[in-house]
Amino acid sequence: MYDDLKRWVRTVPDFPKEGILFRDITPILLEPEALGTVCDIFYERYMQREVDKIAAIESRGFIFASILSYRLGKGLIPLRKRGKLPWKRITETYALEYGEAAIEMHTDAVSPGERVVIIDDLLATGGTARAAVNLIMRQEGIVEECAFVIELSDLEGRNTIEEIPVFCLMSF
Amino acid sequence: MYDDLKRWVRTVPDFPKEGILFRDITPILLEPEALGTVCDIFYERYMQREVDKIAAIESRGFIFASILSYRLGKGLIPLRKRGKLPWKRITETYALEYGEAAIEMHTDAVSPGERVVIIDDLLATGGTARAAVNLIMRQEGIVEECAFVIELSDLEGRNTIEEIPVFCLMSF
Repeated sequence: MYDDLKRWVRTVPDFPKEGILFRDITPILLEPEALGTVCDIFYERYMQREVDKIAAIESRGFIFASILSYRLGKGLIPLRKRGKLPWKRITETYALEYGEAAIEMHTDAVSPGERVVIIDDLLATGGTARAAVNLIMRQEGIVEECAFVIELSDLEGRNTIEEIPVFCLMSF
Repeated sequence: MYDDLKRWVRTVPDFPKEGILFRDITPILLEPEALGTVCDIFYERYMQREVDKIAAIESRGFIFASILSYRLGKGLIPLRKRGKLPWKRITETYALEYGEAAIEMHTDAVSPGERVVIIDDLLATGGTARAAVNLIMRQEGIVEECAFVIELSDLEGRNTIEEIPVFCLMSF
């Protein structure tokens, strides 16, 4: 855990609705020292591991995953909301509080046996993370780890991806 | 212009609807050499200019802007779709073919007089770019330049931001 980083997380009450404490990471982005620290931690964790691709969950995951992909010199896989990817793709749906959502991946994004680190800013209930893991596995990729900047530990999202290692920088 | 990069752009016909030729940048992301080249061009362009912040238009703009922000050591401003930013924010709406869309920015993202480079993957009609420029200017920031990976030049989007310098890597 890197609790020093918590000073860069702004807690906003009642967003997106009453009773929710929203953990806002935009202060991390505005402060180069903070963003650099987060990205250095990810880079140092994966630089000596066997990793072929970095998968980025839309859209805040794009920020941290892009920098990691660039620094490692490994390809970046965008996992996008439904209807955004133009080419041959696979889809995973997951439940929301009301209704469902979906994320998609191009079928040429992962080759069988490739090792992929999945990045997002937040692990909450784990619905999106589970869908992301499924997308990689359906193309016979191997999920090396799922990494998040923040974990909302009470929601027990890591249980939804219990067979996959999980790495989080901060827990609330 | 960097027409060598066009080999990394996939043209997908009839997406998102019939008659549209969609320029797909995901092959750039998957190939570290290509992503590195794009980001090096941006970095070399702005490293010796007076730039205080990098603004990223959601969501593919996040990818290129994040890497540029990290490399320059300058703060990253996410310009997000309506309803995503949790704190005090300003909103700019713009017209779509049917209806309208909006992007938002936190009011603490820019200080008066700061010089900002706005990054997105694509300059099409320029509606989003104009809204992004307006957000920065409303907070008394100065838009140093708007930079795009791809320009669809027939759509003349740069006319919508005619007072702002525009930089594009490829034109279709």
